[in-house]
This record gives sequence, C-alpha cells and structure tokens, in this order.
Amino acid sequence: MTSIDPGSTYARLEARFARINALAEAEGMLHWDLATMMPRGGAGSRADQLAVLRALRHGLLTAPEVGDLLDTAQTDAADAGGDGLWRQANLREMRRLWRHATALSEAQVEALSRAVSACEAAWRDARADSDFAAVEGKLETVLALVRETAAAKAEALGLSPYDALLDEYEPDSRSEEIDRVFADLAAFLPGFLEEVLEHQRREPPVLIPEGPFPIDRQRALAVRLMEQLGFDFDHGRLDVSLHPFCGGTPDDVRITTRYDEADFTSALMGVLHETGHALYERGLPLHWRRQPVGQARGMSVHESQSLLVEMQVCRSHLFLSFAAPLLREAFEANGPAWETDNLYRLYTRVEPGFIRVDADEVTYPAHVILRYRLERAMVSGDLAIADLPAAWNEGHEKLLGIVPPDDRRGCLQDIHWYDGAWGYFPTYTLGAMTAAQLFAAARTADPAIEPGIGRGDFAPLLAWLRANVHGKGSLVSSRALLEASSGRPLDAGVFKAHLRRRYLG
Amino acid sequence: MTSIDPGSTYARLEARFARINALAEAEGMLHWDLATMMPRGGAGSRADQLAVLRALRHGLLTAPEVGDLLDTAQTDAADAGGDGLWRQANLREMRRLWRHATALSEAQVEALSRAVSACEAAWRDARADSDFAAVEGKLETVLALVRETAAAKAEALGLSPYDALLDEYEPDSRSEEIDRVFADLAAFLPGFLEEVLEHQRREPPVLIPEGPFPIDRQRALAVRLMEQLGFDFDHGRLDVSLHPFCGGTPDDVRITTRYDEADFTSALMGVLHETGHALYERGLPLHWRRQPVGQARGMSVHESQSLLVEMQVCRSHLFLSFAAPLLREAFEANGPAWETDNLYRLYTRVEPGFIRVDADEVTYPAHVILRYRLERAMVSGDLAIADLPAAWNEGHEKLLGIVPPDDRRGCLQDIHWYDGAWGYFPTYTLGAMTAAQLFAAARTADPAIEPGIGRGDFAPLLAWLRANVHGKGSLVSSRALLEASSGRPLDAGVFKAHLRRRYLG
Repeated sequence: MTSIDPGSTYARLEARFARINALAEAEGMLHWDLATMMPRGGAGSRADQLAVLRALRHGLLTAPEVGDLLDTAQTDAADAGGDGLWRQANLREMRRLWRHATALSEAQVEALSRAVSACEAAWRDARADSDFAAVEGKLETVLALVRETAAAKAEALGLSPYDALLDEYEPDSRSEEIDRVFADLAAFLPGFLEEVLEHQRREPPVLIPEGPFPIDRQRALAVRLMEQLGFDFDHGRLDVSLHPFCGGTPDDVRITTRYDEADFTSALMGVLHETGHALYERGLPLHWRRQPVGQARGMSVHESQSLLVEMQVCRSHLFLSFAAPLLREAFEANGPAWETDNLYRLYTRVEPGFIRVDADEVTYPAHVILRYRLERAMVSGDLAIADLPAAWNEGHEKLLGIVPPDDRRGCLQDIHWYDGAWGYFPTYTLGAMTAAQLFAAARTADPAIEPGIGRGDFAPLLAWLRANVHGKGSLVSSRALLEASSGRPLDAGVFKAHLRRRYLG
Repeated sequence: MTSIDPGSTYARLEARFARINALAEAEGMLHWDLATMMPRGGAGSRADQLAVLRALRHGLLTAPEVGDLLDTAQTDAADAGGDGLWRQANLREMRRLWRHATALSEAQVEALSRAVSACEAAWRDARADSDFAAVEGKLETVLALVRETAAAKAEALGLSPYDALLDEYEPDSRSEEIDRVFADLAAFLPGFLEEVLEHQRREPPVLIPEGPFPIDRQRALAVRLMEQLGFDFDHGRLDVSLHPFCGGTPDDVRITTRYDEADFTSALMGVLHETGHALYERGLPLHWRRQPVGQARGMSVHESQSLLVEMQVCRSHLFLSFAAPLLREAFEANGPAWETDNLYRLYTRVEPGFIRVDADEVTYPAHVILRYRLERAMVSGDLAIADLPAAWNEGHEKLLGIVPPDDRRGCLQDIHWYDGAWGYFPTYTLGAMTAAQLFAAARTADPAIEPGIGRGDFAPLLAWLRANVHGKGSLVSSRALLEASSGRPLDAGVFKAHLRRRYLG
C-alpha cells in the first residue's frame, strides 16, 4: 500500500488493520445477506457466525502488542510527503479505534451485549403493546451499563461521558458545538413551521398520483435514476429488505429498499437517499482501502451524503423537472398529478407528526433535538427512565405543538436506546445541516452543477463530492472537512436559508 | 454441547473447532454470494476476504497448542455412553484435520496456492483454444507440488502418497479398494454398453418435449418437487449460478441451478440432484453442529446422497409416473412426448460421448475410471504431463470406444487437476455405487419406501436416510457406514445389477 519498510511497526499495524477490515467486510456481507436473502431458519447460525467474526476482529484489535506498536509507530509516519500525512492520520484513527475497544473490560462488553439483547427483544413487544412499563426495567439496566461505558471511555479518551459515546459514531464531534447549532434550530423551528403551514394553505392542493405501480416498473425506474446519479452496477446491487440500508463494501455497494404497489414515492426517494450513501462508499480513497483512514468519516458525514442527494438534489424543483417525464414514462401515466409543480409539492409537503422516520425535512430536526436533549439528560443522570415518557411528551409538544397519544408513537418508537445506540441521534440532523452547507459550497464552486442537475447530468456534482468529501476518507475531522470545503464551521444558518428558500419561496 | 467439564482440554478443543467451523460457514456463505449475487466488480475484494478468513481458520487449526491439546484430550472422551463414542470420533476427526493442516509448511501451502492460481487461469484460455501446450508447463509445476504435498501427507498420515491425497476428500478411503471395484466395473462396462445400445435401438424413438419453457415455470416446478422431497424453504434457498452447487449451512442450505428456456430436463434433474446434497446437509446431527464429527462424512457419501435422489429415485419409472402429470401441468403441455414412458426413455438415454459432465449414468463411470488411472500414474511418477493427452485419448478409446477429436474435449475439459484437486475424481463413481447399495438396502429395510415414491411420498425414504446416513455425520468411516446400513462392503455388483435392471429390463 505504501513505500515504507514492510518490517516496520507501522507496516505491521497496516497489515493487522487490513485483516481487521477484511473481517468487518465479511460481517457486512453476512449482515446484508441476513436482511435480504437469508431464510428465517438461518437466523441462529448467522448470529453465531457474526459473533465469532466480531470476537476475532475484537481480538485482533485489542491484542496486547497493538498498544506498543501504536506507540512505536508514531514517528514512522512523520516523514514528509502526502502519504506521510495519510499515515499520521491513519495512526490517529488506529489509536482511536484501539482506545474505544480497550476502554472496556471483556466483562463490561459482555454485560452490555447481554443487557442490550434482552432489552431489544422486550422492546419489540413493548412497542407493539404500547406498554413502556414492560421494558422500563431492562432499559434501566441498559442505561446503567451505558453510563458505565461512557465513564470508562471518557477516562480513556479524555472527553466528557456523553462526548465519549458520540465519538464512536461521529469522531471529534462535541456536544458543545451540537448544543450551539441545535439551540439555533430549536429557536427557529416552531415559528418557521407555523409560517410554512400557512404558506402551504395558500398553495394549490397536492394531487396524489394514482396507482397501482407494479414493483418491476418501480425497480426499473429506480435503477435508471441510480445509474444517472453515478451508481455503477458492476460494483453494486439494489435489493429488497424490511428496513432500507446501504451495506457491502466500496467495490460492491449494496443498497436496499421496500416497495409499495399503491405508492411509488417513498421507495423511489428511499433509493435515491441510499444512493447518496453508496456514492460516498464507492468514492472512498482506493489507496487506503482497508485502513482506518480510508473509511467513511462518521455517521453525520455519511448522512450528509444521503441527504445531499435526497433533500438537496432530488426533492428540488430542478431535479423533479428532469425526473417528471421519466416517471410518466415508467408508469405510462399522465395528467396534472404528474406535472413537475405537483410532484414538487408532493415531495415537499410539511406536516407535524409523531413518528421520526415519517417526518418531512422541516419537522425532522425537532424529532432529533428532542431525543438528543433527553439522552444527554439520561446519560448525565438528570433524567430517570421512569420519567422518560412524560419528558418525551412534554418536549414533543414544545417543539412540534402536538402530544403523542401513546408511548408507541412516543418514546417507544425508535430502536436506538433499547439497542444500546446512545449518542447516535444527533448525527441525523448534523448530517442534514452539513448537506445543506456542502451543497451550497459545491454550487458556488462549480456553476455547472446546477444546470447539470436540470439535464440529469450529475457528473459535475459527483466530481466535487469526490474531491472534497468522498476521496478524503478519514484524513481529517468532519469539522475540518467542512471548513476546508465550505470555508466555515457548521452553521445552522445555511440550513435555515435552504428551508426558507424551499418552503417559503 | 456436552455435559463434560467446560475447562477440560476436550472442551477447549470443542470450543476451538466451533469457532473454526463458524469461520468455514462464513466462507461458505461468501462463496455462495460470489457465485449467485456478487457484481463482477466485487471479485477482488471477495478474494481478499476469503483469503483472510481462510488464514485465520488455518491459524486456529495449526496453533502450536492444538497438538498438545489433542494428545491430552485423548482419554477425556473415553468415558462410557453414547456421547463418549461421539467424542472419541470427534477427536479422531480433529486429529485428521490437524494432521492434514500441519503436514505442510506455510511455504509449501503458499507455493501450491500460487501455482494453482496461475495454472487455473492459464487453463481457462488453454481450454478455450484447445491448446494443451499453453498450460503444460504450469500443470507440471502443479503436479510437482502436488507430489510434494502427497509425500508430506503420506508421512504425516502413514498412508501411500495417493491415498494421502484421497483422504482429504474421502477420509479412510483407500486406492486398494477403489482398484478392486473399478477393475470390476471397467471389465463390465464396455460389453454392457454394447448391450444397452443394442437394446435402445429396439425401443421406440425418444420424443423431445417442445419448448420454450419459461424460467418462472421451471422454477415453480423445481420448488414444488423440492418441497415434496423434503426440502424446507424455511431453511434454504434455490438460486441461479453458472455452475450448479449445494452450499450454505445445515440450517440454511442453498442450492443453485441454471435454466435453459429450450430444455427443462437438465435444470430440473440438476435441482433434484442438488436437493439430495441439501437433504444430507440438513439431516446432519444437530447436537454436533459445528464439530468435526457433525460434518458430512466425505465426498463419496455426499455424492451418494445426490445420486440416490437423482439416479436411483428421480430417473426411475416410478418417480416419473408421479412427476409426469406435474410436468404437464407446469408447462400446460400434453401429448405423447409427455407420457411417463417417453419421459423415462428421455431420462435414461445412453450415448457415449467425450464430456464427463454431460455423460449418462452408464458411461459416467468410464470417464471417472480413466481420470483415476491417469492421476494415479501421474502422482506416482509413471506418467509425465507431456504424455497426458495421448494417454487420455488411448484410455478413452479403450473404455468408451471413441477418441476425442481435440484436447478441449479430452484432457482439458475438467478443472480439477489444473485447480489442484487431485484424488477427487474417484469419489463420483464411489458415490454412484454407494447410492445404488444404500437404496437397495433402504427398499429392503422398509417396504413402504417404493410405493411412497410412486405417490410422491418420500417421508419413508427420508426417514431411513436420516437414521442410517445423514444423522451419523462423521461418526464412522464411509466403509463402516455402508456396512452397517447395507450389511456389506462396497460392492460393484449392486450397481451393476441396478444398471442391468434399468437399461436392459
């Protein structure tokens, strides 16, 4: 991979991390198979296979010699030249992964893993029955162990407990900065939402295209648009799963969706969203393929790439003016519901609701801010699990003006906390703001980008993203990446300006 | 898994082999994906992933402490009871795997692996061009390393060099026994073939069902017959690949086929063949799931299970009388070509040819005997690679009465030698003979089996196979398995009697 001495400690670390990442790729493929292909009777064995691979990977990462190698290698990478910078960054990322992995004892890892399995299973029933009490005790156990994890990682990483959790999903992101931008958004959103709803009432009514929309046609249209956006089917697939995701590896990117014969709009936009994730993975630096520095930067940058494609590009009037004839052709349809203006109104409809995953672009941040505030309070010990439902409903009303009628549509709706994913929620909205900021920078940097979108030519946009985001891997922090490409730190103002232009324009 | 002390050396070995086999399962799934789902651009990464998994598995098997554990554990399993026998057998199989894996140095393994990769790639072109000279040198290199491997394994296992190679595919099988049964068959086949061809000339001509046969209908029919035979789609799949195979794991068995719209017969019988493999995997002893003793016995027993289903059951007049109405229904067809008698003649047509994989049941053993004799001579040093084409053609004429017009249809047709698989070929015909012997024993043991087949009720046959073959895993040798279930050692006479009954009856 590099020209350095293959016997050096640095080269030995590269070799080890190449193995670690090859194992991670194998796990990724087995996860994809689990979600798309596996018959249900294979679940038990698959869980075992994944556990063995994970344990081997963890063992390779936490082996006693790795810490020593990381110390010794520190100077090896300090030689000059472009590769030297990448090697330094690679070591920095190796060290982060190692610190996260070694911060907890085997016993702690196992205790959390067991608690999470038990809680997640109980949550499935509790959600179905809208019965928070049925999972309360197990969630308390999870929180206690998450707080223990946060404390141990805080110690190892020199961070606050919440930031130590956050760091696993979005390295170098800090709650201080999130507080700042979320406060800005939270102050803006309720009033803005009122204005948008008022504005919408003056618009023509949205016409719903009438189905059915056969799945093979939906798929063919999705494939056509994916290819147009730059997805390479020699290096990827589109399949069906219950929960859409982007998996696989950079040279074999696998995205999924689920189709509804009565409504094509959701699957189509879902595919375009996942295509944004896929283009990011595919554009990661080939030279650093299985090294930590060659991986995607973090969850908020990843989400920025899917939201840039979905929200910034594909829900725009410009894109829909290009796509509308393709939609009519795909479904052999015609009439006012299929005009660009109506499709645009359809794809930018705003309506406050209870469910995060169904939320529109304007109300989505409120759902995230609510969860972020609640999980910070729970991790710090300021909010007890027993008080979560009431705190949820109160916060929801404050941000969105409506109160969930039950916990199924309240604090039981998302899997994250019950599954041990604390510190993840803010990355959704950080991603949305990052997307707005990157897209604004891209349009300014290359005036060919916007007219390209109107013609279905995404090459200029993709070239900018490859150079400024995808090809950077994990060379620098998300913050530095954003500053280098857009000229400023994360700024809620750009996102707010985008919302104003789109929803009040 | 067992009630023994979890800290004992035996229990530690079980834990290690459970990990080794979980890795092997992961590799199996990634192979399946490679053959059925992977876009071509994923090939390079997949090769790396598989190499890393293989290396980790090899490392777990050959770690220095394993040899000591195997010695110490020897007595632990000698306690009484049924599980004691299984544990002893498990240790025996662990030791065999360990001896095979440790017989070669890392350098030898790598040299063979490289030589095989180079030779296999050259073979693809050489076969396409029918140019043996183009691959001759690389095949010589492979043979030299295979002979080195055979010598090292012979030393480690206390076997002759050829038997040491054979032992990897069919444990405990010995060339002395193969010589005996193959000599019997080789003496029988040429004259028998003459009789069969003469007999066929007196039969009504075979009518070919006219297509096209849409792939979705072929698939639906295959699925229906698979289910009827006992294949459980909650624990398996049917997909498409260039070369049909049975892969996956016992609770997630994945078989493949390839369809030809102009001719349904080959894909259908191919699916039934793979279903035989799948039923074996699915019936392996659950209690010993990831232990060596819980794995399939060897390639000849595996092939006996596919050939029992395909040759003994599904090409029988009785089965075809049950299947004929389903075929007519599936393809909405009718007429004399679709009558049971004609379908039976179609599925039992005999015609000497050059290509092994296209051969019928009668001429197939001649193809195998030819290869067996040639590879033994090459491994012993009695036949040089340069003389292979001439020796092939001479042997082919002697056994089948026709001479291949070129090497593409001669010694270049099969991948095995070029890919390093020496000692594999005899298992095909050992499997065919074993299938005949097991099926004869089953019919005698349970008189309900044959009438069941005529009604499409395969439960009695499957129950016998579960009890006598599948559920035994690798508890005893193939030889002991066959003697216990059929009352005698491998006997070419049973296979010959089957051929006489079917082709001269």
